[in-house]
Amino acid sequence: MNENASAAPAPDLTSVDSWWRAANYLTVGQIYLMDDPLLQGDLTPAQIKPRLLGHWGTSPALNLVYAHLNRVIVRDERQLIYVCGPGHGGPAMVANAWLDGTYSELVPDVTRDRAGMQRLFEQFSFPGGIPSHDAPNVPGSINEGGELGYSLSHAYGAVLDNPDLVAVCVVGDGEAETGPLAASWHANKLIDAAHDGAVLPILNLNGYKIANPTILARIDESELLSLFRGYGYAPIVVAGGYDGEDPMKVHERMAAALDDAFTAIDAAQEQARTSTPEAAGTDMSAAGQSDGPHDAARPAWPMIILRTPKGWTGPKEVDGLPVENTWRAHQVPLPNVREDPAHLEQLAEWMKSYRPHELFGDDGLPASALATLKPHGDARMSATPFANGGRLRTDLRLSDFRAHAVDTAGSRTLTASATHAFGEWLADIVTMNPETFRLFGPDETVSNKLESVFGVTDRAWAAHILASDENLAHSGRVTEVLSEHLLQGMLEGYLLTGRHGVLNTYEAFVHIVDSMFNQHAKWLEATRDIEWRRPISSFVYLLSSHVWRQDHNGFSHQDPGFLDVVVNKQAHLVRISLAPDANTLLAVMDKALRDVDTVQVIVAGKQDQPAWLSMHEAEEHVLRGAGEWAWAGTPGLPDRDDDQPDIVLACAGDVPTLETVAAADIIRREFPEVAVRVVNVVDLMKLQDQREHPNGLTDDQFDALFTVDRPVLFDFHGYPSLVHQLTYRRHNHDNLHVRGFREKGTTTTPFDMAMLNDIDRYKLVLDVLKYVPGLSSAHPDAVADFTQRRVDAREWSYTRGEDHPDVTGWQFSG
Amino acid sequence: MNENASAAPAPDLTSVDSWWRAANYLTVGQIYLMDDPLLQGDLTPAQIKPRLLGHWGTSPALNLVYAHLNRVIVRDERQLIYVCGPGHGGPAMVANAWLDGTYSELVPDVTRDRAGMQRLFEQFSFPGGIPSHDAPNVPGSINEGGELGYSLSHAYGAVLDNPDLVAVCVVGDGEAETGPLAASWHANKLIDAAHDGAVLPILNLNGYKIANPTILARIDESELLSLFRGYGYAPIVVAGGYDGEDPMKVHERMAAALDDAFTAIDAAQEQARTSTPEAAGTDMSAAGQSDGPHDAARPAWPMIILRTPKGWTGPKEVDGLPVENTWRAHQVPLPNVREDPAHLEQLAEWMKSYRPHELFGDDGLPASALATLKPHGDARMSATPFANGGRLRTDLRLSDFRAHAVDTAGSRTLTASATHAFGEWLADIVTMNPETFRLFGPDETVSNKLESVFGVTDRAWAAHILASDENLAHSGRVTEVLSEHLLQGMLEGYLLTGRHGVLNTYEAFVHIVDSMFNQHAKWLEATRDIEWRRPISSFVYLLSSHVWRQDHNGFSHQDPGFLDVVVNKQAHLVRISLAPDANTLLAVMDKALRDVDTVQVIVAGKQDQPAWLSMHEAEEHVLRGAGEWAWAGTPGLPDRDDDQPDIVLACAGDVPTLETVAAADIIRREFPEVAVRVVNVVDLMKLQDQREHPNGLTDDQFDALFTVDRPVLFDFHGYPSLVHQLTYRRHNHDNLHVRGFREKGTTTTPFDMAMLNDIDRYKLVLDVLKYVPGLSSAHPDAVADFTQRRVDAREWSYTRGEDHPDVTGWQFSG
Repeated sequence: MNENASAAPAPDLTSVDSWWRAANYLTVGQIYLMDDPLLQGDLTPAQIKPRLLGHWGTSPALNLVYAHLNRVIVRDERQLIYVCGPGHGGPAMVANAWLDGTYSELVPDVTRDRAGMQRLFEQFSFPGGIPSHDAPNVPGSINEGGELGYSLSHAYGAVLDNPDLVAVCVVGDGEAETGPLAASWHANKLIDAAHDGAVLPILNLNGYKIANPTILARIDESELLSLFRGYGYAPIVVAGGYDGEDPMKVHERMAAALDDAFTAIDAAQEQARTSTPEAAGTDMSAAGQSDGPHDAARPAWPMIILRTPKGWTGPKEVDGLPVENTWRAHQVPLPNVREDPAHLEQLAEWMKSYRPHELFGDDGLPASALATLKPHGDARMSATPFANGGRLRTDLRLSDFRAHAVDTAGSRTLTASATHAFGEWLADIVTMNPETFRLFGPDETVSNKLESVFGVTDRAWAAHILASDENLAHSGRVTEVLSEHLLQGMLEGYLLTGRHGVLNTYEAFVHIVDSMFNQHAKWLEATRDIEWRRPISSFVYLLSSHVWRQDHNGFSHQDPGFLDVVVNKQAHLVRISLAPDANTLLAVMDKALRDVDTVQVIVAGKQDQPAWLSMHEAEEHVLRGAGEWAWAGTPGLPDRDDDQPDIVLACAGDVPTLETVAAADIIRREFPEVAVRVVNVVDLMKLQDQREHPNGLTDDQFDALFTVDRPVLFDFHGYPSLVHQLTYRRHNHDNLHVRGFREKGTTTTPFDMAMLNDIDRYKLVLDVLKYVPGLSSAHPDAVADFTQRRVDAREWSYTRGEDHPDVTGWQFSG
Repeated sequence: MNENASAAPAPDLTSVDSWWRAANYLTVGQIYLMDDPLLQGDLTPAQIKPRLLGHWGTSPALNLVYAHLNRVIVRDERQLIYVCGPGHGGPAMVANAWLDGTYSELVPDVTRDRAGMQRLFEQFSFPGGIPSHDAPNVPGSINEGGELGYSLSHAYGAVLDNPDLVAVCVVGDGEAETGPLAASWHANKLIDAAHDGAVLPILNLNGYKIANPTILARIDESELLSLFRGYGYAPIVVAGGYDGEDPMKVHERMAAALDDAFTAIDAAQEQARTSTPEAAGTDMSAAGQSDGPHDAARPAWPMIILRTPKGWTGPKEVDGLPVENTWRAHQVPLPNVREDPAHLEQLAEWMKSYRPHELFGDDGLPASALATLKPHGDARMSATPFANGGRLRTDLRLSDFRAHAVDTAGSRTLTASATHAFGEWLADIVTMNPETFRLFGPDETVSNKLESVFGVTDRAWAAHILASDENLAHSGRVTEVLSEHLLQGMLEGYLLTGRHGVLNTYEAFVHIVDSMFNQHAKWLEATRDIEWRRPISSFVYLLSSHVWRQDHNGFSHQDPGFLDVVVNKQAHLVRISLAPDANTLLAVMDKALRDVDTVQVIVAGKQDQPAWLSMHEAEEHVLRGAGEWAWAGTPGLPDRDDDQPDIVLACAGDVPTLETVAAADIIRREFPEVAVRVVNVVDLMKLQDQREHPNGLTDDQFDALFTVDRPVLFDFHGYPSLVHQLTYRRHNHDNLHVRGFREKGTTTTPFDMAMLNDIDRYKLVLDVLKYVPGLSSAHPDAVADFTQRRVDAREWSYTRGEDHPDVTGWQFSG
C-alpha cells in the first residue's frame, strides 16, 4: 500500500518501453513462429505455423498495461491482480508471464531462454499445446474472456475482503457493449472502501470488434466522460499511439494516469479507514435530495479510459488496406505469410521493429533492462496467489448443523421451511467466517427465508442509506443487486481468489446465468489438467422459490430447466441435490460447503412443508443419496414373499415428495393389498450409472431400489425427460413412468399447479390403478372416484380461490 | 405525429387525475375484492379473496403514466405503444385496458359495468382466472415483465421501421439494475431517426425492489443525470408525491415533461427527415476527437426520470411500520385483511380515498370525466395493433431459394459454405422486404459468412461513422452490437409488432439468451389460448460458428447445449434443424421463414463442407426431415435378403455427417461384406414420438429407418444424451449408441476436435467393428489398424499443426 510508496526507485519509462516491446515481440512470435524465435536467420515459410490462430488486435494494449503495472509494483510494492477482459489476447498474457519468469517456473519445459522461447511459440494455439485465450493455463488469469462480459464482476469479487489488493481490470470496448459488463460498473456501490480492496478499471477503446466499430469509441468524449461519472467513477483519459506517435509520449501519459489513479485509490481508502465510525456511518440525507459534494461514504473511484489503436505497432497496411487502427487487426493481420513472400517480409519487418536484439541475448535471456521491471516472487501478477486462489483457501469453519435441526419429535406431521432452517445455520457460518464467506442474492435473501442472516450481518451498500432502511450498511456479508450476472461474477471472483460463498436465487431466473455457469464449469474442467492450479471452493447455488411454488407470480417464474443445463457438463464437475425437507437441506449443505472444484446445485423450497425426516434420518439419507422411505410405504413390505413391491413410487424434490407420500398414504389406506415402496432421491446423480458419474448407483444398487421388473412411477421436480436421460441405461427403464413439469403454469393455487402438470397425488393413484395388474378391476369405481377428486379439487379452487381442504388438511397417517 | 399537435383540446388535468384514481381503484380492487366492487355496502371479510396475490407498489406510477399518455393521444392523435417494464404491475395494465373499453371488447364476459368490474376483480390472480403479470392476456402488452430486463430492447425493436410510432417504455429501477437493461440504453445508437420511430423511456424511481432500495434511487441526482446524458439521452426529471404532496402538482409537472419530451422527439425526427442526404450523411470527424455539439446524426433523445413513492396513495403505515415509499409496498401492503378488522378498515379507507362514487356510476360505468381521456379504437394503447403484431403481419416476400442452390453437378465431392449460400439468398430477402425484415447479430454477420447482405444494405449505426468504415450507415437492415441480450430483445420486439427477422450468432454464446428464449417461448405458449392474439412470425435463430469448428477459439466457444434448453419447451413451439450442407440449409430456411408462432433453431456451419445433396435432393430430404442416404451406404442394400442392414450409421449436423459418410465410405471399401445404411436427420424433432411432437416420426416410420433390432451408431452434433432423451421410447432404443460432444475441447485442429470427442470416422469404424457380429474376428488386425490411424492422425496434427492428409484429402468415393 501507499506507506511503501517510495520503496524502490521507479523504473524509468525506457524500461517500460523495453518490456512492452519484448511482450509485443513474444506475442507476435506465438501467433506466427515455429522456429528460430529470435529471428537470427532469415525468415522462411517453413518457420511459419500452418494454421495462424490468435488475436493480435487487443494484445499491444494488454502488454502496455502489464508493463506499466510492473513499474508500479516494483516501485510501490503493491498487491495487484490483472483481470484481462479481452481474454482473447492470450498470447499477450502468456508473453508477460514468461518475461516475469513465472511461466518457466510452472511449466518447466518452457524455459526462460532461447529453447524455451521456441517452445513458447510452438505451443501457442497449436494442437497438443495451449489454447489461444487467457485460459486457466495462463499464470495470473482468473478470467478466460472467451465469452465476454464478466471481467469487471470477477475483479470486484476478487477484491472483497482483500483490503490491500487492487484488481486492475482491462475492459475491452467490445466487452463493454454486453449487458453483464454494463451492469457491473455499478458494483462500486457494493464494495466497502474500508474493508475491501479497490478495482481500477481500464477501458481500452481500441475502437473495433471483429468487423465493426464499438459504440463507446464512437460517441463524443463528453458523453463518454459523462457516462462514467454517472456510473460513479472519476475517469482519466489516456489517448495516443495514433498516426505514428512516439510511444514514449504515451508511456509518459500512461504512467502519470496510473500514478494519479493509485494516489486516488490510496486517498479514498485512507479516508474510509481512518474516519470515525460516525463519519463513515449511516447517511441520513433523503435519497435523491442530496446533490452536494460526493457522498462521503462512496469515493469517486478512478478509472482509466485508454484510447489506443487496435493492433498498435502492427502492420499499418496489408495488401493496400489499412490494418492498424481498424477491425482488420482483430486476429492475424498478415494472413498469408506462408504463401505470400510480401507478407513474409512484412512479418519480418514487423517483428524486427521491436528490436529484439536489444531485448534478448542470443541465448534468449531477457536483457537487463527488463530485469528492473520484473517484480519478485508472488508480487508478480502472473504469480500472485490471488489468481490461484486454492493457494490461499482455508476450509470453511462450520458449526454443527445438527444444532439447527427441526425437531420432528418422531412424527411426520410437523412442518417447517427448509430454507429458514438453513438460514439459521447460515447465520452461524457468516459469524464464524467473517472474512472468507459471503452470501449473494438478487434481492431475495428475505424472500427466500434466509432472513436469519440479518441477525448477524447486513447487506453491504455504498450508496445512500436512509434511517428507514433495514439491514443495510457500509459493511456486510450479504451482497444484493438485481443482476444475477453481477452476483454470479462476483461470487466466481470471490471463489477464484480462495474464499467461500453461496448464491441464492429464484430457480426460474438462474437460467439468466446459464452461460456463466457453463463458462465457470469449463474453467474448472480445464484446471483439472493443470497441476499448479490448487482446488477452489465449489460454487454453491441455492435455488428456492422454485417452479412448484411460484403459483402467485405465474408462468414466467416457473422453470426447472437449469438442471438440464447442469447435467451436460462433465459428471465430476456437477452435483444436483433436491432436498425434500428441512433437515435434509441442512445435511446437503454441509456436504456442499466442504466441497472443492465442483458446482453444487441445491433446490429447496421456502414454504412450510412436512419435516419428514429426523436429523439422524436425514443425514443417513443424504449419505446414501437415494433410498427407500420404508415408513411411507406398505408396512412389512420386506417380509412379503418375494421381498418385492407391486409398484415403486419414487420422487425427487419437495413438492413431488409431498404428493408421493400422500399418494402412498392413500394407497395404504384405500388399497391395502397393494405393496408400494416409496423411494426418495436427494442426489440426482445417483440415478446415473456409476460409470457415468462418480456418485452414481451401481446397477445392483439401482435394481435393489427400483426393482428390475416392477412399474416405477417417478414424480420429479423438473422436466420428466431428465430422469429418462439419466436412467436410460438402467435395467428397469422400460417400466419407468416419469411425471414432472410439463411446461404448464399460471397464477393459481399450489395444488392446481401440481394438477396442471399431472404430478399430484390423485394422478399418482390413478397411475397405480393403471400399472398394478388387476387393481382397477378389483376396484371398479376407483378410477372414476379419483378422477372426480381431481375435478372437485379444481372446482373448489376455481370457485373459492384456495386449495381443497382434503389437500390442505392432509397429514401423514403414520 | 406533430402535424396533428392540436387536433383536439387537451383534456384537463382533472380528467387525468380522475383516470389515475379510477385506475388505482381498479388495481386495488383486483388485488383484494371478490364482491361488491363499488363498495356500495360495508366491506366484510367475505368479500376479500382468500389468497392475496399481486404487486401494488409499482402500480400507481404505471397508472399515472397511462393516464397522461391518454391525454397526449387524445390531444395529438399520436401512435403510442406502452411497454411496461414493471410487468408485475399486471392489475394496473388490466385496469387501464378496462377503462379504455378494450378489455370488454376482447373478453366479452368482463363487461364495462358493475358486473364486469366484479368479474374483473374476481378473475385477477385467481385460479382459473388471469395471471398476476402484464402477461399476453393483457391487451396492449408486448412485455410480460416477470423476468426483468427486456422492456427497453422490446421497445426499440417495436419502433424499427415504424416511423410514426413512439414506444413509451416504463423501466423500473429494479429492472434497471439488470445487465440486459443496462446495455439496452445504448440502443439509441442503433435506430435511425429518419426511418424508425422513437422510444421514450420513463425510468420510474420508486426507490425499492422486493426488500431493498435500488441503486439508481440512491445515488446523487447529479450522477444520475450524468449517467443518462452519457447514455446519450436528455433526461427530464419529474419528482413528486412525497409527504402527501397534492397529486395535481405532480400532474402538472408530468404533463409538462411529456409535452417537452414529445416536442423534442418531433423536432429530432423532423430534422432527420427533412435534412438533405449530405447533411444527414457520413460524419467524417475522427472518432473521439470531436467534442463539439451533439452529433448531428444522433439526437439526444429525451427520457423522463419519474421519481415517485413506491405504493403511492396506498397505506402510509401498517401495524406501525411505514409502507408507502418503502419496499413494504411491493406486493400486498395490507396482508391480513380477512383476519384483521383493522386491516379491513384500512383497506376500505384506502379504496374510498379514490372517491369511487365520482368515478363510476352505481351501474359501474366510468364517469364522463373519464370519457374525455379515452382515445378511440386502435389509438387506445390497449388496442393498438402494434401490441398484437399478428394483425399487422404480412407474409415475408421470398424469392426462389433454388436460385441460390449450390450446383453439385451430380457429384458428392464439391464443397461449399452453407451460410454463404444462404447469405446470397438473404440478400434477396432483405431487398424484397425493405420495411419488414431485419437481420440481427453480435458483430458476426461477416464472420458467419453472411457478408452478401452487405451488397444490398448496411449496418444501421447512429454513432460516429468514419470514412474508413465499411457497410456502416445511418440506415441499414442489419443490426450489430455485442450484446446477445439486446439483439434478442430487439428482434422479439420487431416480431411482436408484426415483422420478420433472423438472429445469427455463435452457437456457444446463444446460451447467453437461454432465459430470454424461455420467456419468449412462454409468451408464445400463453398466446395459444388467447383467441384475439394473432400469430406472429417465428423467431429464427441461425447458429453458426458451432461447437465443432471453434477449433481456433477453444473450449469457451464450444457448447452445443442450447438445443437441450430448447427441447424442454412445449413441442408445438420449437423446431430444431441441423443442416448437413448448403442446399439443405436453403430448404430449411425456406420453411422456417414462412412459419408462425414457433421458435426455429437452425444450426449450420460456415466453413466449406461437402455439398452432399443437389437442390432437389435437399428439398426432398427437408420435406422428410430424416431419411436414408442410399448413395452413402452399401450399394444395393435394399436388394439383400432381409432388406435390412447389418448396422445403421445415423447422423445429425454437418461435421458428424461428414464423419459418418467418410466412415461409411471406409466400410464400403474395406469391409464390403457389411451392409451399412446411412441415415441423416435434419429435423431433430423427427426422433421424437409423433405423440410427443407434431413433427415426430410414427413408430413404423422410425422402425423402417432405424430397424428394430440392428445396431445404430448415431453421430450427433450436440450432447449425446439429447438423442437418448428424444428416442427413449423407440423400439430399437437399446441398440442405439450415440456419439456427440462430451465436453472435451480446446484450441486444436478440426479432426482432433472430432477425435477428442470420439465422433470421428475412425472411431465410428471401430464401433462398427465392435457392434457387427463376427466382423472384428474376420478382420483380426482391423481394430489395431484403426486405433493406429487415430494415433497417427493425432501425432500428425500435434507435430505439424494441421490435420493429416488422409483426412483433409478425403473425398467421397461414390
